[in-house]
Amino acid sequence: MLILATDFGLAGPYMGQMHAVLALNAPSVPRIDLFADLPVFDPYRASYLLPAYCRTPFPADSVFLCVVDPGVGTDRKAVIVRTAQGWFVGPDNGLFAQIVRRAKTVEAWEILWRPETLSASFHGRDLFAPVAAALARGERPAAEPTAGCLYAAPLPPTELDRPHWPDDLAEIVYLDHYGNAITGLRPSVLAADAVLSCRDHRVRAATTFGAVPPQSGFWYVNSNGLIEIALNGGSVATHWHGGIGDHVSF
Amino acid sequence: MLILATDFGLAGPYMGQMHAVLALNAPSVPRIDLFADLPVFDPYRASYLLPAYCRTPFPADSVFLCVVDPGVGTDRKAVIVRTAQGWFVGPDNGLFAQIVRRAKTVEAWEILWRPETLSASFHGRDLFAPVAAALARGERPAAEPTAGCLYAAPLPPTELDRPHWPDDLAEIVYLDHYGNAITGLRPSVLAADAVLSCRDHRVRAATTFGAVPPQSGFWYVNSNGLIEIALNGGSVATHWHGGIGDHVSF
Amino acid sequence: MLILATDFGLAGPYMGQMHAVLALNAPSVPRIDLFADLPVFDPYRASYLLPAYCRTPFPADSVFLCVVDPGVGTDRKAVIVRTAQGWFVGPDNGLFAQIVRRAKTVEAWEILWRPETLSASFHGRDLFAPVAAALARGERPAAEPTAGCLYAAPLPPTELDRPHWPDDLAEIVYLDHYGNAITGLRPSVLAADAVLSCRDHRVRAATTFGAVPPQSGFWYVNSNGLIEIALNGGSVATHWHGGIGDHVSF
Repeated sequence: MLILATDFGLAGPYMGQMHAVLALNAPSVPRIDLFADLPVFDPYRASYLLPAYCRTPFPADSVFLCVVDPGVGTDRKAVIVRTAQGWFVGPDNGLFAQIVRRAKTVEAWEILWRPETLSASFHGRDLFAPVAAALARGERPAAEPTAGCLYAAPLPPTELDRPHWPDDLAEIVYLDHYGNAITGLRPSVLAADAVLSCRDHRVRAATTFGAVPPQSGFWYVNSNGLIEIALNGGSVATHWHGGIGDHVSF
Repeated sequence: MLILATDFGLAGPYMGQMHAVLALNAPSVPRIDLFADLPVFDPYRASYLLPAYCRTPFPADSVFLCVVDPGVGTDRKAVIVRTAQGWFVGPDNGLFAQIVRRAKTVEAWEILWRPETLSASFHGRDLFAPVAAALARGERPAAEPTAGCLYAAPLPPTELDRPHWPDDLAEIVYLDHYGNAITGLRPSVLAADAVLSCRDHRVRAATTFGAVPPQSGFWYVNSNGLIEIALNGGSVATHWHGGIGDHVSF
Repeated sequence: MLILATDFGLAGPYMGQMHAVLALNAPSVPRIDLFADLPVFDPYRASYLLPAYCRTPFPADSVFLCVVDPGVGTDRKAVIVRTAQGWFVGPDNGLFAQIVRRAKTVEAWEILWRPETLSASFHGRDLFAPVAAALARGERPAAEPTAGCLYAAPLPPTELDRPHWPDDLAEIVYLDHYGNAITGLRPSVLAADAVLSCRDHRVRAATTFGAVPPQSGFWYVNSNGLIEIALNGGSVATHWHGGIGDHVSF
C-alpha cells in the first residue's frame, strides 16, 4: 500500500501529479491519501503526527510518501527510512525525527539517484514519488547506480533525528475538519486527571464527545494515540481561535 | 461499489484510514467519496441529503458507508439498512430516517459484532468500515456470532425513523463549492411558480444558471431532485451569507 | 488514464458521481483528480492552466475530462478535442482555447449524442463523463448515431479558440494550497531579470523558496512551466490578499 502524507492540499494540481507518477510506476498498488494538509512549511510539527498516523490500519510493508519540504531545491538530503511500520520516503528536514527516534529497529539511506528532469520546486513528483513506487513494487535500496531510482547510500538513522526537539510536543500540531486540536503529546506524559490549558481554557479528560455538556471542552486520547482537545459540538479552531503552534500546558 | 458519505473532511487523516480498512477488506471493490462534508455533527440535516444522493448513478447493490456520528462512544446503536437503493451502514441517530421512511421495501439490523480493538471516537474506521467491506464482498448479516463482523440482529426499520422529523425540510441542508444552497425540499411540495424566500431574498424558478441575469438568484430542481437556490455567477454562502439550517419559506 | 479537471470542489457530491460514472463505464482505467478547484465559473482563466497541467506526467493517450461550465443547460456546444497531449472532453466556452491554439496537431468534434436522461445542471455527470469513459476504453468519435455516446461531428478546431484572448495572461489564474499565485504567463514572455508587480509588491526571480529571505516574495518558473509568484514561508493569498484575476505587470 502506498500512503501519501503531504502539505500539498488535496484539490489542486500537486496530488494528482503525484498519483499519476505512482499509478504509472506501481499500477497494482493501492494508493491512499492520509494527509494532504500536514502543517504547511512545518516539518517540526508534522514530525509528531507521523508516528501516530503512519501505522495500523496500514499494513506493515506500507510505503509512506511524506512531503513537507519548504527547503525543496536547496541541499537538504532526500532519504529513505525503514522501520517495523514500513518504508518512509521524503526530505531530511526533521520530518522523520520522531519516526527514527521512536523506532526499535531503523535503517536509513540517502537517495543518490536523480531523475533526468528534476524541477526546482516539485521533488515530490520528480524524485520522491518514483522512489516510493519502486519500493512499493518490492525493489530495495542499493549502493550502485544500476539500482535505478533506488540508488541510495546507507545513512546513520540518527542523522535524521533532531536531538534538540522534545520527545513530546506540548502544542497544537493539527486542527481537523471539526476544529478539534491534536497535540504532539502522548498519554504517557499526562496523569489521567490532568488539567490541560490552551488559549486560556482549562479542560479535563473525558472518554468521548457525548460525555460532556454541549460546547464544553475536554481532552482525550484520540483514536491514534495522541492527546486531543475538543468541544462537544464545537470547534477549538473557531470558538477558541486555536491555531497550529499554540502552546498547551499541564 | 463502496460509497463514503461522512462529515470527516477530505484532506485530513480520517478518510485515508477508512479507505485503508476498505481496501484491505474488500480489495476488488471500487471506492467512491460521495461526501466528506456532510453537515458537521448534524445527522438531522444530513438525513435529507442521503435519499437524494445515495442512488443513481451508483449501482443497485452499492454499499453506502454513512457516518455523521456526534454520539460516537455513547450507547447509540450501530446499524445496517437495506433498501432497493443498496446497503447502508452507520449510526442510528436519525441519519437514516428519511432513507427508511421513503423506501418501499426496507430491512434493518443492529450490528452486534465488536472488533477486538474499538476506539472510543472513531467507529467509522473500527466498526462501520469492516462491516461495509464485508457487505461489499457479498456477505450478509446473520444472527450468529460466527457471522464475523456481520453478526447482527434484525431490527424493525421504523425504529430508525424519527417520526417528529418532517417529510421535507424547509432549510438549507448543504452549501456546495460554488456556494449554492441545497434544501431539504423536493419539487412535489412546491408549485412551479412558487416564490421562495431565504435570508430576505425572494427567488423564482429558472431551469439553469444561464436563464437569469448575472448575480441574480433563482431556485431550481437540482440534478439529484432537491430544490436548490443559486445565484448566476454568485454564491448564496458568500453574497447572502447563507448557512446550514437557514430557513426557507414558500 | 482518466484525468479530471473541474471547478466542482472535491469534498461535495459532484466528483463522487463523476467517478461513479467513470468507474462503471471504464472500470480498468485509473482515474486521477488533477483539479477540483479550477477558477469557479471562469473558463477564461482556467484555459491558461490546462496546457500547462494536462501533459507530463500523464501519458500521451490520456483523457482529460475538463468541466468549468457556467453555461450548462444553454446552447453552448459539448466537444471533444484531440492533440498530441491526449483527448479533452468538455464544454465549448473557451476552456480549450489555449489547448487548441498551442497544439501543433489538433482535431475537434461536436458531441451530438445525448443521454436518455440529461439534467439541466450537471452535464459533467450525464454527458461528458460517459463520453470520456468511452474514449478511455479506446472507442473513437464517429459521425453515425450508432456510435453510441461517441456520436460526434467533426468541427474546425479554430472554432474552439477565442481569438481575442491573449496568448499569455498577465493575471493570477490560480492560488494554490500555500497561497502561491500561478499566473497565465510563460517564461518566454519575461526576461530572466524582469521585475514583476502584483498588488503593489515588486518581485524578482529566484530559483526556489530557500533562495530568498523568509516572507520575501519572488517569482519563478514553476514545475509546470508557468510563472508563479510566492513568498518564502508565506502566502500571496493571505499576506498580499491576492485573488484570481489580479493583474500582474512587468
